[in-house]
Amino acid sequence: MDALTGKPDPVMRHRIGEVTLTLVGRDGRPLRDSAVTVEQRQHAFAFGNIGFDFVRLVGGPDPDGAEHVESFGGGGCLDLDRLASLWLNLFNTATLPFYWGRYEPRRGAPDIGRLTRTARWLAERGVTVKGHPLVWHTVQPPWLLDLGLDEVERLQRTRIRDLVGDFAGLIETWDAMNEAVIMPVFANGDNAITRLARDRGRIFMVRMAFEEARAANPSATLVLNDFDLSSAYECLIEGVLEAGIPVDAIGLQTHMHQGYRGEEYMRSTLDRFARFGLPLHLTESTIVSGHLMPPDIKDLNDYRIPRWPTTPEGEARQADEIVRHYRSLVAHPAVQAINYWGLSDDGAWLGAPVGLVRADGSSKPSYLALEGLIKGEWWLPPTELRTDAEGRLTVRGFFGDYTVSAGDRQAPFAIAPGLTDLSVTIDG
Amino acid sequence: MDALTGKPDPVMRHRIGEVTLTLVGRDGRPLRDSAVTVEQRQHAFAFGNIGFDFVRLVGGPDPDGAEHVESFGGGGCLDLDRLASLWLNLFNTATLPFYWGRYEPRRGAPDIGRLTRTARWLAERGVTVKGHPLVWHTVQPPWLLDLGLDEVERLQRTRIRDLVGDFAGLIETWDAMNEAVIMPVFANGDNAITRLARDRGRIFMVRMAFEEARAANPSATLVLNDFDLSSAYECLIEGVLEAGIPVDAIGLQTHMHQGYRGEEYMRSTLDRFARFGLPLHLTESTIVSGHLMPPDIKDLNDYRIPRWPTTPEGEARQADEIVRHYRSLVAHPAVQAINYWGLSDDGAWLGAPVGLVRADGSSKPSYLALEGLIKGEWWLPPTELRTDAEGRLTVRGFFGDYTVSAGDRQAPFAIAPGLTDLSVTIDG
Repeated sequence: MDALTGKPDPVMRHRIGEVTLTLVGRDGRPLRDSAVTVEQRQHAFAFGNIGFDFVRLVGGPDPDGAEHVESFGGGGCLDLDRLASLWLNLFNTATLPFYWGRYEPRRGAPDIGRLTRTARWLAERGVTVKGHPLVWHTVQPPWLLDLGLDEVERLQRTRIRDLVGDFAGLIETWDAMNEAVIMPVFANGDNAITRLARDRGRIFMVRMAFEEARAANPSATLVLNDFDLSSAYECLIEGVLEAGIPVDAIGLQTHMHQGYRGEEYMRSTLDRFARFGLPLHLTESTIVSGHLMPPDIKDLNDYRIPRWPTTPEGEARQADEIVRHYRSLVAHPAVQAINYWGLSDDGAWLGAPVGLVRADGSSKPSYLALEGLIKGEWWLPPTELRTDAEGRLTVRGFFGDYTVSAGDRQAPFAIAPGLTDLSVTIDG
Repeated sequence: MDALTGKPDPVMRHRIGEVTLTLVGRDGRPLRDSAVTVEQRQHAFAFGNIGFDFVRLVGGPDPDGAEHVESFGGGGCLDLDRLASLWLNLFNTATLPFYWGRYEPRRGAPDIGRLTRTARWLAERGVTVKGHPLVWHTVQPPWLLDLGLDEVERLQRTRIRDLVGDFAGLIETWDAMNEAVIMPVFANGDNAITRLARDRGRIFMVRMAFEEARAANPSATLVLNDFDLSSAYECLIEGVLEAGIPVDAIGLQTHMHQGYRGEEYMRSTLDRFARFGLPLHLTESTIVSGHLMPPDIKDLNDYRIPRWPTTPEGEARQADEIVRHYRSLVAHPAVQAINYWGLSDDGAWLGAPVGLVRADGSSKPSYLALEGLIKGEWWLPPTELRTDAEGRLTVRGFFGDYTVSAGDRQAPFAIAPGLTDLSVTIDG
């Protein structure tokens, strides 16, 4: 059944639960034959986006030295109120940037204050915060390139332990390893991490990332993340699991600047990676609302043009594709999270019009289309229901957090897998 | 120094040794100031080819039932004398076919007799025999498809143990695992091995192959072989080694029906796989002497045309490319073997003109060009030398087996890495 309309929706049945509440008042007596309002407050599914733009607005200006290091995203057109309103309306999970080169542009002076303020601001608004990435070969601090491999390894280990330990409690999910498949053969810029990976091997690097992070926060959810969705990544995962490295989730990037890859490709890809029995996180998703990047570009970073406009045709296509993409992902039982990569075109990665809102802050059709899913078709708005003679009512909806209210009395409850009956005390 | 001309050849210095022989007669006295003839007999480097055509000529006709199973190669135009003369002149290592579907087309009746006769015939002629492959998803017996996965695994294990055990002493090198990267996702024909690999994983399959083979013949050289030379294979190898599976050599296929890939590609590829510190075997090499297969064909098996002729231009190109290919491979210190995939166009895989001789048995320029390397530039023909006043002479040449003779007296010796001085007793 669809959460709202009651129509059958077998495709989403693994996302939907039905719970029978028995409402009782503070006096312990059932609330019989009463009108109540039930309303969804949050999705259990992680609908995420990057929260990079919040860092300057909430945390403060970039640290000294960061201006010399490559950046990913970071716009300046939207004020905090506007950004927060658009962002928080759709998303419940924020990825914050911990690129080594920008987090610690000067050795020994990490950007901990700004990131802590930003993470806390988000957490206070009910947002789950995720850190990205602990180990990657891109956006490196310039000072790292001069050091020997043993020293690079020591500093990389220290960085992981410090980051994960410092943010424990505030950030419980990390992209522990980013793009290990290409890491030792990456040729688009010399860097110390590629040198280390070439010398020590991919599995060594993955083990280092996961062991250090696990030691610093045993309860953290640690993600192995990659853009390479070919057999190479499957082979890497097999080796990593065979080596006994405890991976909590498999991260799959889908930056689709060269065009939407379609439901069939996505389903077969998800099936291939679901084989390992781990949750799948769609960590980095983008769909452009302008012209497509030429298909012969191998590394997306190599495509740099002065201006990449959003177009009306592109926006219509993007809205259509984003709905198809999200539907196919949410329909797959192994998927636990989808993280879109940018809210606004302003400051978007590669200057591409991948935002859900334009640089001026106006919503694209894709924003409204996604809202139509996350806060529409897959969401239970305030709904009037009645309890029966025993004070019971049945609620069906997407897994997540809900409230039930009667007059000025309100109580929270959850719809979760396996949960069929609940007693809820409701008072004023 | 070049083996023959004495010119410097730093590129090949890891293939060449210099040994000072002290020749003594049966009476123990040095053979002073004497004319002797030194002659190379064999290369230490494995210059190989498939020996599939020998199986019918030496072993006898195909077993009943094999006619229903796909075949790789197998011509009928050359008689044994002609084939043996052309083959043995160039090659010292023969790959024999043990495709499950053709080796055991009827369950429980393996083709052991024919293969044993063929392997013995080759061994008696100084040829090292290699078996191919123990585990692969193609050329399967039809009866295997009906069985459950546990039974498939049991039979696959039995096949490995039986083959490796039955041929121990005669065949000491096996392609233990063939094409594991694609194995679980192979979509060009349903088969029981792909089903098993999809269920159990690649590393499980590799471990099964190597463990069973090792148990049956602890001294065997076991090769992990693949056509996928991308990062996927690197990742697989990392996982396999991390899992503690003892691989003796990494096999790299280079079927170049779509064109010679060039020295630069080959060198960088060899460097990538040399990183694991294991010998590299170029297990399957082909270069066509006709038109090239279109580049959009993904699985070479999908290109089937009624006739694929060898052409004069193609033959000139093939000869040039085969020399460049062999030079670049032999120049790389990690390469231990090159196996060409076919001698004659008659019966060649895919009907492609990849042979070194035409279907009528006449030599193509590539045969003569390869002969110019293996038996020319890299070979010491009978050469007159003189011992000094102490009976000594110095011989420089490619690692391998040699003889020295004085009149009707002859003695064998070897040039091998680290060997600088030898006392050789020469008698009549």
